[in-house]
Amino acid sequence: MDLRPASVQVLLAELEQLPGVGPRTAVRLVQHLLRQPAGAQRLAAALARAATGVRHCATCFLPSEEETCPVCRAAERDRGVVCVVEDPVNAWAIEATGEYDGVYHVLLGTLDPLHGVGPEQLTIGALVDRVRTTAVREVILATNPTVEGEATAHFVAGLLRGSGARVSRIAFGLPAGGEISYADQVTLSRSLAGRRGIE
Amino acid sequence: MDLRPASVQVLLAELEQLPGVGPRTAVRLVQHLLRQPAGAQRLAAALARAATGVRHCATCFLPSEEETCPVCRAAERDRGVVCVVEDPVNAWAIEATGEYDGVYHVLLGTLDPLHGVGPEQLTIGALVDRVRTTAVREVILATNPTVEGEATAHFVAGLLRGSGARVSRIAFGLPAGGEISYADQVTLSRSLAGRRGIE
Repeated sequence: MDLRPASVQVLLAELEQLPGVGPRTAVRLVQHLLRQPAGAQRLAAALARAATGVRHCATCFLPSEEETCPVCRAAERDRGVVCVVEDPVNAWAIEATGEYDGVYHVLLGTLDPLHGVGPEQLTIGALVDRVRTTAVREVILATNPTVEGEATAHFVAGLLRGSGARVSRIAFGLPAGGEISYADQVTLSRSLAGRRGIE
Repeated sequence: MDLRPASVQVLLAELEQLPGVGPRTAVRLVQHLLRQPAGAQRLAAALARAATGVRHCATCFLPSEEETCPVCRAAERDRGVVCVVEDPVNAWAIEATGEYDGVYHVLLGTLDPLHGVGPEQLTIGALVDRVRTTAVREVILATNPTVEGEATAHFVAGLLRGSGARVSRIAFGLPAGGEISYADQVTLSRSLAGRRGIE
C-alpha cells in the first residue's frame, strides 16, 4: 500500500515541478519538512506572501511590492541609461557589483519562437516605447551569452536603431581568474575579437 | 541598492534552510517561482496542508492524516512482525518492494548523544512497550548501515533482549548489479561475513 498520506503525495508532486528537483530530491525535502512542520509553515507563508505581494514594476518590470520599484523611484539613478536583462536575477547580479547607477528593463524571458515566445510575450514593446518617449541616451543589452540571449539582443538592437539612443552589448571574454588554456573556443574567440588597446 | 523585494528576501532565507539548497539554488528557485506565481501558490498550499494535516500514527509513528495510519488499521497486515526504521522515507522504500506484510515502527531519528539526541528523543520507549504488550514475534531492525544507524540498532536490540521477540537486522552486502572490485572494503567485509549456504 502507499504509505504516503495524500497531502504528502500532493506536496511531492508540487516539489517535483521545481527546477532541479527530481523524485529523490523531493522525498528528501519532504523528509526534512515533515521533521520541521514549523519550518514548513514558515516556508508556505513566505511563498504565499511572495506570490501574492510581488508584482512587476510598471516601468521596468523588476519584481516589486509597489507599483513602481525602488530603482525607478530613486532620484539618484540615471534614467538616461537602461540596462536590459532577461530576468530579474540578472539585474540583481548586476546591481550587486555596485558599479551601475542607471535603471533597468526586464524582458521577462528571451525570444523562443519554437515554444511560442515572440516579442509580444516579452516586454520588448514597452522597452521601445520607453526609449522613444523618455530621454534615454544608452541602452545596454545584458541578455545572457546564449543562443537565445544573443538572438534577443540582436532583435532588440534592430528595433532600437534610429531611436537616437546608443545601443551597446555587455562585453564577453575570459572570466576573471580564468585560465586561457581552459577556456572554450567561443569564449576565446570573443576575448580576442573584443580586445582593447592598452593606454 | 538591494533590488529584491522584502518578501523575496524572506523567501530566499526560508529556501536556504532546505537541505541541499544554497544561495544560488535559492535564487534559481525564486526565479522559477516569480515566473509562475500560480505554481508558487499551489506549493504554498500543499506545504501548509502537509504541515498542519500530517501527524504521527499513534502506534507506529508513520506520518498519517488519521490518528492511526493505514498500515496499523489494515486487517491483512501481520502485527507480529515490526520493522523498525529511522525515518518514514525508509518505510516508504521498504513498502515499495511489495515484499513486506508486517507493520512498522518509526524511531524518528537515530541516537546522537553529541547533539543531545538520546533514547528519550526517539520513539524507542514506545517500541519497547509495544513489543512487551502486544504479541510481537519478530522485530526487524532496518536502520541505515551508518555509524548512527548501527549504534541505534544495537541499542534497541539490547533493550529488547528477553522480550520474547526475535530481533533481526536487515542484511548488508553487495547491492544488486554491483561490481565486486568497485565495492568499498566495509561493504565487501560485510558481504563475506554475511555469506549464506547455497542449497
